[in-house]
Amino acid sequence: MPAPFQRLDHIAIIVRDTDEALKFYRDQLGLPFLFSQVMPDAPIRLTHLDAGGGVHLQLVQPLKDDHPLNAWLQKNGEGLQHLCFKVDSVAESMKTLPGQGLTVRDKAPRCGPNGRASAFLDPAATRGVQLEITSDPSAG
Amino acid sequence: MPAPFQRLDHIAIIVRDTDEALKFYRDQLGLPFLFSQVMPDAPIRLTHLDAGGGVHLQLVQPLKDDHPLNAWLQKNGEGLQHLCFKVDSVAESMKTLPGQGLTVRDKAPRCGPNGRASAFLDPAATRGVQLEITSDPSAG
Repeated sequence: MPAPFQRLDHIAIIVRDTDEALKFYRDQLGLPFLFSQVMPDAPIRLTHLDAGGGVHLQLVQPLKDDHPLNAWLQKNGEGLQHLCFKVDSVAESMKTLPGQGLTVRDKAPRCGPNGRASAFLDPAATRGVQLEITSDPSAG
Repeated sequence: MPAPFQRLDHIAIIVRDTDEALKFYRDQLGLPFLFSQVMPDAPIRLTHLDAGGGVHLQLVQPLKDDHPLNAWLQKNGEGLQHLCFKVDSVAESMKTLPGQGLTVRDKAPRCGPNGRASAFLDPAATRGVQLEITSDPSAG
């Protein structure tokens, strides 16, 4: 059976204000800015910086007061929230991962930045680390 | 001025029991095992897995009951704890980072796995994300 997770894609950090956060991650630490997109359905703003080796830091800002990530911010403050791994196809992994003891929480792939698919695993099965999978748009 | 942080080196996950954690990260997720070392002074056990792109997942297990990471585990449970970035020289960065608004918490470089130097930044200045820097043994 192939390894379910190919490689780390990004590390998500929840922030209250993307522009303020960029003053730290881009300007102070010097991480190259890649892109920033509003995902209108969530709604959240996702901003990617290059952490080297093809891995991105993803800044996640919830854009409405009753977004679940605002409750997360109230409880935890800004900080590390999840890891996302690249797979060949999110749709395919959603079928095969449960057989490997990795339950997927989402019922259908989400639409991530740049048209990529993504899905979150059930955190009850991932030892306290929130895990997401993603794949390229053509892979579904 | 050069960017203070070159690239992501590893992501640290605090665990209660390394062997149990390996059943998940190595066996279920399929991340390649790299090495496991006990740092006797701390004391902690550090275990690295290959997350792709030269980035490691580092499992950190405290090895005595009164280690500060046991208090962290009591409060948070197992989970993401810090990000570590590669620099040319930890000793040199400890001199230059404060001038860039990044205070280093450690007074002297720590000894990390494989003889590498490391130091933790003052978390008050890093927006809720615990940050470490590391460099190769020859760089100090």
